[in-house]
Amino acid sequence: MAAHINRGAWAALLLLFMALPAPASLGEPAEVAAPPALMPAPENLVLGEGRFRVDETLSVGGASIPGDRAFGAAGRFMARLAGRTGLFLEQDFLASQKMTAAASVLYDFERTGKLEPFEDESYSLTVGPAKVRLSAVTDIGLVRGFETLLQLLASDEQGFFFPCVEISDRPRFTWRGLLIDAGRHFQPVEVIKRNLDGMAAVKLNVLHWHLTEDQGFRVESKAFPRLHQLGSDGQFYTQAQIREVIDYAADRGIRVMPEFDIPGHSTSWFVAFPELASAPGPYAIERRFGVAQPAFDPSNEKVYAFLDTFLGEMAGLFPDPYLHIGGDEVEGHHWDANSDIQAFMKRRGLADNRALQAHFNGRLLKILKRHGKKMVGWDEIFQPGLPADIVIQSWRGPAALVESARKGYQGILSNGYYIDLAQPAGAHYLNDPLPEGSPLDEDEKARVLGGEATMWSELVTAETIDSRIWPRTAAIAERFWSPAAVRDVDDMYRRLPLVSLRLEELGLTHIKNQDMMLRRLAGGPDIEPLRVLAQAVEPLKNYQRHSQGLTYTSLAPLTRFVDACAPESLAARDFRIKVEIVLRTGAPETAGELARTMTLWRANHEKVLALAARSPALREIEPLSRGLAVAAAAGLEALDQLARGERASQEWTESRRRELAEAAKPAAHAALAVVEGLGRLIEACASGPDRPVPRRDP
Amino acid sequence: MAAHINRGAWAALLLLFMALPAPASLGEPAEVAAPPALMPAPENLVLGEGRFRVDETLSVGGASIPGDRAFGAAGRFMARLAGRTGLFLEQDFLASQKMTAAASVLYDFERTGKLEPFEDESYSLTVGPAKVRLSAVTDIGLVRGFETLLQLLASDEQGFFFPCVEISDRPRFTWRGLLIDAGRHFQPVEVIKRNLDGMAAVKLNVLHWHLTEDQGFRVESKAFPRLHQLGSDGQFYTQAQIREVIDYAADRGIRVMPEFDIPGHSTSWFVAFPELASAPGPYAIERRFGVAQPAFDPSNEKVYAFLDTFLGEMAGLFPDPYLHIGGDEVEGHHWDANSDIQAFMKRRGLADNRALQAHFNGRLLKILKRHGKKMVGWDEIFQPGLPADIVIQSWRGPAALVESARKGYQGILSNGYYIDLAQPAGAHYLNDPLPEGSPLDEDEKARVLGGEATMWSELVTAETIDSRIWPRTAAIAERFWSPAAVRDVDDMYRRLPLVSLRLEELGLTHIKNQDMMLRRLAGGPDIEPLRVLAQAVEPLKNYQRHSQGLTYTSLAPLTRFVDACAPESLAARDFRIKVEIVLRTGAPETAGELARTMTLWRANHEKVLALAARSPALREIEPLSRGLAVAAAAGLEALDQLARGERASQEWTESRRRELAEAAKPAAHAALAVVEGLGRLIEACASGPDRPVPRRDP
Repeated sequence: MAAHINRGAWAALLLLFMALPAPASLGEPAEVAAPPALMPAPENLVLGEGRFRVDETLSVGGASIPGDRAFGAAGRFMARLAGRTGLFLEQDFLASQKMTAAASVLYDFERTGKLEPFEDESYSLTVGPAKVRLSAVTDIGLVRGFETLLQLLASDEQGFFFPCVEISDRPRFTWRGLLIDAGRHFQPVEVIKRNLDGMAAVKLNVLHWHLTEDQGFRVESKAFPRLHQLGSDGQFYTQAQIREVIDYAADRGIRVMPEFDIPGHSTSWFVAFPELASAPGPYAIERRFGVAQPAFDPSNEKVYAFLDTFLGEMAGLFPDPYLHIGGDEVEGHHWDANSDIQAFMKRRGLADNRALQAHFNGRLLKILKRHGKKMVGWDEIFQPGLPADIVIQSWRGPAALVESARKGYQGILSNGYYIDLAQPAGAHYLNDPLPEGSPLDEDEKARVLGGEATMWSELVTAETIDSRIWPRTAAIAERFWSPAAVRDVDDMYRRLPLVSLRLEELGLTHIKNQDMMLRRLAGGPDIEPLRVLAQAVEPLKNYQRHSQGLTYTSLAPLTRFVDACAPESLAARDFRIKVEIVLRTGAPETAGELARTMTLWRANHEKVLALAARSPALREIEPLSRGLAVAAAAGLEALDQLARGERASQEWTESRRRELAEAAKPAAHAALAVVEGLGRLIEACASGPDRPVPRRDP
Repeated sequence: MAAHINRGAWAALLLLFMALPAPASLGEPAEVAAPPALMPAPENLVLGEGRFRVDETLSVGGASIPGDRAFGAAGRFMARLAGRTGLFLEQDFLASQKMTAAASVLYDFERTGKLEPFEDESYSLTVGPAKVRLSAVTDIGLVRGFETLLQLLASDEQGFFFPCVEISDRPRFTWRGLLIDAGRHFQPVEVIKRNLDGMAAVKLNVLHWHLTEDQGFRVESKAFPRLHQLGSDGQFYTQAQIREVIDYAADRGIRVMPEFDIPGHSTSWFVAFPELASAPGPYAIERRFGVAQPAFDPSNEKVYAFLDTFLGEMAGLFPDPYLHIGGDEVEGHHWDANSDIQAFMKRRGLADNRALQAHFNGRLLKILKRHGKKMVGWDEIFQPGLPADIVIQSWRGPAALVESARKGYQGILSNGYYIDLAQPAGAHYLNDPLPEGSPLDEDEKARVLGGEATMWSELVTAETIDSRIWPRTAAIAERFWSPAAVRDVDDMYRRLPLVSLRLEELGLTHIKNQDMMLRRLAGGPDIEPLRVLAQAVEPLKNYQRHSQGLTYTSLAPLTRFVDACAPESLAARDFRIKVEIVLRTGAPETAGELARTMTLWRANHEKVLALAARSPALREIEPLSRGLAVAAAAGLEALDQLARGERASQEWTESRRRELAEAAKPAAHAALAVVEGLGRLIEACASGPDRPVPRRDP
């Protein structure tokens, strides 16, 4: 087979497919008809000659029966292909199966895949001029292969086609997850379903469903119905809905692992059952975020009886072999203050709260074993004395993962994949569960099962969660699936907007909800100035939004301008890159583009002010908008000076630096993302240009 | 109390609320911050002095407990108010109820409302400078009142406010429905839920859920599971989902009436049970649309036993007092061809197929009675001999409704409210279940319960259905709720875009999915030329899309350009009105607007061609786009001639008429909606202007 794909192969692929020039600059937004953007990149890809024409004669056939996974995958493939092309494809094979032998797209597989780690997800895909063959060991491999085939769709003057190609593909890691936190903000079933579709599109295979939190108990318990009745504000999943989601995920080859976070992060449990807690009640659902103190009482035998019943019920509801018990962020102040617990620790020789939690986990482990489940927990559960068949999920960092792998534990990495923190895709992309130069030996490496992107939901609702997950999680998915050598950030960014656009067909709202939110803020349809600003802005990163003078709670609205802004401004990245191009090469067309963009930004403020005058909810963005105008004006001056080949005066430079520093300040819980690029122009002026920048058109 | 609101009162309301000029022209799109747009208009409204400030001190209180309807309505009110304003309102009363006495928005009601016709839905709403009082007899009235209060939200330089006002309100008709056809195209639960929210926002109170069709059997039957297993392609509602929807609707004061369409429109039943049909099987799920021949065999005693069991099961699942049995469009060819049925008819003295169907309905009526349900059916079930406690739903026309009311039957009107046919909102709006000059006496009028908008789903999917329902159904909702005298079409169109925008907060996709679909067609984010064209275009109306050379089936993609176009182009209406203003008054600003719009249209074609060159799915729209450019060029010439005060030459006129006729031709299953306005300009040139049109700016 061919070598791993690389950037050269991608460029060849592009040139072969499209009667279009190859992209001229890095990170160029997808303004042209989409060339095939495979993400995750397959393990092996060999380009062939010719094109398989996608027209109304296309048909699909294979050995499967209605209701099974392969049949469903073929059906969704046809519906999505018809949807993208507008072609009236023959889809009635769903009922008649009449075209199996003559079908132009033929699939086959050997057996039904199991939903557990290390299952075979490989597939091979051969596109010839008249026939497409998709083969896999399991039907899960088929699901993966159909997604690749859809990503291959391209077009030319004759119409749609698949390029002739041979692909053999399989994942690098067996555990490729997305955590969705339905505890802090409830996420209705349709949110979960559309994100399962998104996950399948980029070959993720574990939905880690964080179901209980201080802020909400989100699953129906028939054993203890007061748990969800009192602990959820009525926002919980019925068991019928849970089963619906599990089936939906299984159809797409995705495991559903539930998390019940104990002994901390558990306030919502104690609203109904204060007697299980370490401090006296009563308890109310927590509305604030952060580390809350309520925790289960590990010295109380009734706690284990209760958890035995509850986890037994959940073990029956969730078929996954793993069950996540959380275990993170237990400070133990309530343990310290409880004399019964202190006496218990002394009696048992438990030296500190860590030892007490290890004792608790040891009891839980027995309970889970009895119910046939393997235990997963966060870093904190990693304690001497626990058996080696537990899985450690590392949120603290790669060192913790290395340590646990060396001690014989399986692990998954989440540190570096915290998509709630508004970091750029590129940063997540280069974060590797098994980085080059890992100190682990082969056996130890095998214990690193993969990783999970974590969508913590302090600051997301059903309206905004998709835009925090997508498209950045597609880059993380490539890290988990593709060969380690696939790590060209620029090429990832080339493909990302195309992948993002294709995710929309699954009902994901990551693009379309921005305009909707801006319309609501503006109170009308005229939102162009807000879009211009939103594309230049990013939400504050990490945990900075929590220290801006407003206390977010689980009931606070997440409908402000900052919530409409994407976590990463691809426009800002594009601008930065164009600035570098101009400074390095003096490309006149690019300089003209920069000038047009900055002129737009400079003129935008007046329009934003007009909107804000009529809309009180917009008034907080005035500093951001003014900052953009001022900084853009400075950038235009810089570009002019560079075009004249002049070095800027010190006075001018100092003054512009102050303006940029002012423009860079947070406002409305957001900040301008384009200041860096503009700053580069100012600094280039300050030091004098290496070469002249061409004069831009007025 | 005050007189009914009228246009004068609306204008006063506007002037009072806003520091803005009253709208200058009819039908102007909502480019300004939304003035209160109450829809449906309340029965009585008296303006007061002052403004109730909406800020973070606002709180809600009333006598209700978590989980009940009033509590839920108050909670949704607060969440939506916070969402629109971005204010961190105190919402924790949901758990604590601590603010009841001191709350600034106080609600009260006397009793829990019943979900049945003639329940009290009235409310009174008093907004004072410091206190809002909402009172109702039932909690359903409260739900209605909270929607009115939300619609009152306005803003000024100080921030958000409710204007001081006294409203007393109640519905004109007790049956205000929306039919959603989940048979021809399945509509997932989230589609139903978000549309229930939309219904509640405009005070509709009956979801008529069309659950079985030739193309699909959409409800889980535990008695006969093969019905949904074989009849639905896996696309059906589980009983748990049905209950979830019923609860969701009940929270919003909305009844859910199921329809099981028999004896015709029933092919999907016979896939599993061919022995119940009138012709021998086997049967397959129907993919085509139209009137199919399969029908239940009314002579077969097993049919009644089967239906007794099935309808008994459904009667237990759906709590509504009414059950709809369809009954429409039975041609009876299979009855004619079945000798057993012919013998049965002879034996029973049933003269024709109408009599045979009446016999069938009579048997059904007994079954429904036994299960405690009242029967509803389409016009065709209206037959001598049926008792007077059935309800006739008229799809054929007002004459049928009059006839049945005179004969003692209750009726609801759907003729004139077929929102699937892409008719303008104004046409539906003026269609009245009890029009002025109705020949009915008071007793007969009382039998006209109301009406239903019908969303038949031949040509809609979950992706497009919202845009076919909204915003036009809001105008129909006003017809059903507001006093008969509220029928100012221009004022309805003034409010409609504002109402439409506010519906987005409920998750409805009627606005945002257009861009998404255009991005998919373009294969990229640059869709402005497609938006320009889409706003000038409407889908072909009535049943014309079925005769354009492509056969639509239930599996055909509905993702083409026509599907992205709204059923009614408000831009085209706006253009027509501006043309009339210019021709009547010569308003120079308006002439300038027309010129700019036509210049945009004329220049748009080249950009569309560039997109279509890269996107095969767009090539079919080339004639529409060219037509728009040619017609706009003609319009610009006409405007110039009018400005010169010249009468056009006959040659010019003939030539332009031919161009417009060409441009008006359907293409891509759509047609230009702006040809009428452009044609008026041409014709004004042909006859010579009444007065000079001012010269436009270049």
